[in-house]
Amino acid sequence: MYPMISFMKMAMNANFEARCCSSGWFEGTCHVFPVRVYYEDTDAAGIVYYANYLKLAERARTEMMRCLGTEHQSLIGEAGIAFVVRSCNAEYLQPARLDEELLVRTQIRELRGASMRMSQNVVRQEMDGAETKLVDLAIRLACMNGDLKPARLPGSVRKLLGGLAEER
Amino acid sequence: MYPMISFMKMAMNANFEARCCSSGWFEGTCHVFPVRVYYEDTDAAGIVYYANYLKLAERARTEMMRCLGTEHQSLIGEAGIAFVVRSCNAEYLQPARLDEELLVRTQIRELRGASMRMSQNVVRQEMDGAETKLVDLAIRLACMNGDLKPARLPGSVRKLLGGLAEER
Amino acid sequence: MYPMISFMKMAMNANFEARCCSSGWFEGTCHVFPVRVYYEDTDAAGIVYYANYLKLAERARTEMMRCLGTEHQSLIGEAGIAFVVRSCNAEYLQPARLDEELLVRTQIRELRGASMRMSQNVVRQEMDGAETKLVDLAIRLACMNGDLKPARLPGSVRKLLGGLAEER
Amino acid sequence: MYPMISFMKMAMNANFEARCCSSGWFEGTCHVFPVRVYYEDTDAAGIVYYANYLKLAERARTEMMRCLGTEHQSLIGEAGIAFVVRSCNAEYLQPARLDEELLVRTQIRELRGASMRMSQNVVRQEMDGAETKLVDLAIRLACMNGDLKPARLPGSVRKLLGGLAEER
Repeated sequence: MYPMISFMKMAMNANFEARCCSSGWFEGTCHVFPVRVYYEDTDAAGIVYYANYLKLAERARTEMMRCLGTEHQSLIGEAGIAFVVRSCNAEYLQPARLDEELLVRTQIRELRGASMRMSQNVVRQEMDGAETKLVDLAIRLACMNGDLKPARLPGSVRKLLGGLAEER
Repeated sequence: MYPMISFMKMAMNANFEARCCSSGWFEGTCHVFPVRVYYEDTDAAGIVYYANYLKLAERARTEMMRCLGTEHQSLIGEAGIAFVVRSCNAEYLQPARLDEELLVRTQIRELRGASMRMSQNVVRQEMDGAETKLVDLAIRLACMNGDLKPARLPGSVRKLLGGLAEER
Repeated sequence: MYPMISFMKMAMNANFEARCCSSGWFEGTCHVFPVRVYYEDTDAAGIVYYANYLKLAERARTEMMRCLGTEHQSLIGEAGIAFVVRSCNAEYLQPARLDEELLVRTQIRELRGASMRMSQNVVRQEMDGAETKLVDLAIRLACMNGDLKPARLPGSVRKLLGGLAEER
Repeated sequence: MYPMISFMKMAMNANFEARCCSSGWFEGTCHVFPVRVYYEDTDAAGIVYYANYLKLAERARTEMMRCLGTEHQSLIGEAGIAFVVRSCNAEYLQPARLDEELLVRTQIRELRGASMRMSQNVVRQEMDGAETKLVDLAIRLACMNGDLKPARLPGSVRKLLGGLAEER
């Protein structure tokens, strides 16, 4: 009976998930977040506007945190901190186009006292299952308090992120 | 055994869905699309910027079409047409904030030879299950050919949308 | 000699203006604000994305206030109020394209205790001097306090805007 | 009489400029472009959203080209080419806020056969005349033909940009 019940639960949970916004999933320590290209993302050249990949990347970072159980509003409200982008290096390899479904892969590279480094890739899954890398991002985030002064990463956040940063 | 198998299928499908971008679902003739509020959507007043609801609404219209089996690119490529917004009336009732999950409800109101009218609501589901209506949109879309001249709705699109427009 | 000096002043002022962001100018009670179409404003259909006209309109409303001597930050800081869009009705008549220079014309239609109505047009000046109307906007703005509750228009703002609302 | 006439012309030209969108100006080989921060540029943290500086930078690059006498549409129409961002490295030093007037400084660093490198700074002029550097951008642009394949910089564009790249 047990497997049946767990299947029912899985089905219900999965179904519930499909009726919410996806927060993505983890493959090992890498968070994966699906995003769709809409008209708003494109420009008159027919491709995704270069600044808009940074929006997709920020959605993915937010959802990685949500997968781990925390949100911007609770970070601000409970810990009094927020993350601010300090630097962002973007390599644009291939363009994305209207209607395409992309994946944003996010990996924590280094966790420091008051900052962290992530690498993020925006990829497109091709019909044959292969992946084409479109944009390569290296992001440095600083932890700030309410006055936009540097602040130490709270222990709770460090614990959440620690496991992801250790490997590789 | 049969229910078990169907549950497994359901679980697998639902799971598959959760690993893609959600295209939303139908409740009767009303399409429902979940959207999350990210930093990019908000402004210095701490609420979603008024123009950005129009982006959310356009995502929802696109996903309604995708649920029905068609996409912008195939409409352009196969039927040589695209939809252009002719008018948009927005009533802003309550503000949305960072991290909130919203629903966009889309209902086709009228289907004409070369245009259609939709009503769209952006709502927030409260903890108690009640819904708060945030924005009320009335949209008129015109069907255009590649030269941005009015064009008749292709029969295939009319068939897809016809069932949704009849009721109510 | 006097005209010469006033010309010099005019030249210097005008020159100074050209080295700042333009806040536009008044033609009678109508505020006129020039805006340029950049890649960020367009979409894959090769035209300005429908939501982005609302951004241009908001820039124009902000610059009308600045022309009158007030700014968002000082309204918030000194009067404790901000304007929030309550409704926005947009008619899209003709598309704008990359590189075009547009004008946003803003006219106050009605000034009430805690709200006001404006009409705004986005137009393109053609080579022959004629104007093509692209988008027609009717906007209702509510005055809100820091808690996003309705608030009366401060006397100082009412005085600034009063002259413009007096029909013509 | 001559200086008087030239002053009148200056006044009229400057005045004309103030009634158009500013395309900025050159200080030596550095192009300077003023931009204003509007609600659309900010986010719920009360500061300019990190992706939006890339929009400001692109406006500045476009206006530098316009100052030199060329536009996107004519590059596409006459030379069959467009510039695409290949990489963008952004260092975020200080935040910008609502209502602030910023300057984007653009300098061509290297002109190659089918690409160029620019550095761009977003700065704020303080009351005392000093400048605070907010964002530091290093941009690599590739010249592409209509099929998004690499193309050589047309001779006309090379001539326009050559003088700016040589110095320093």
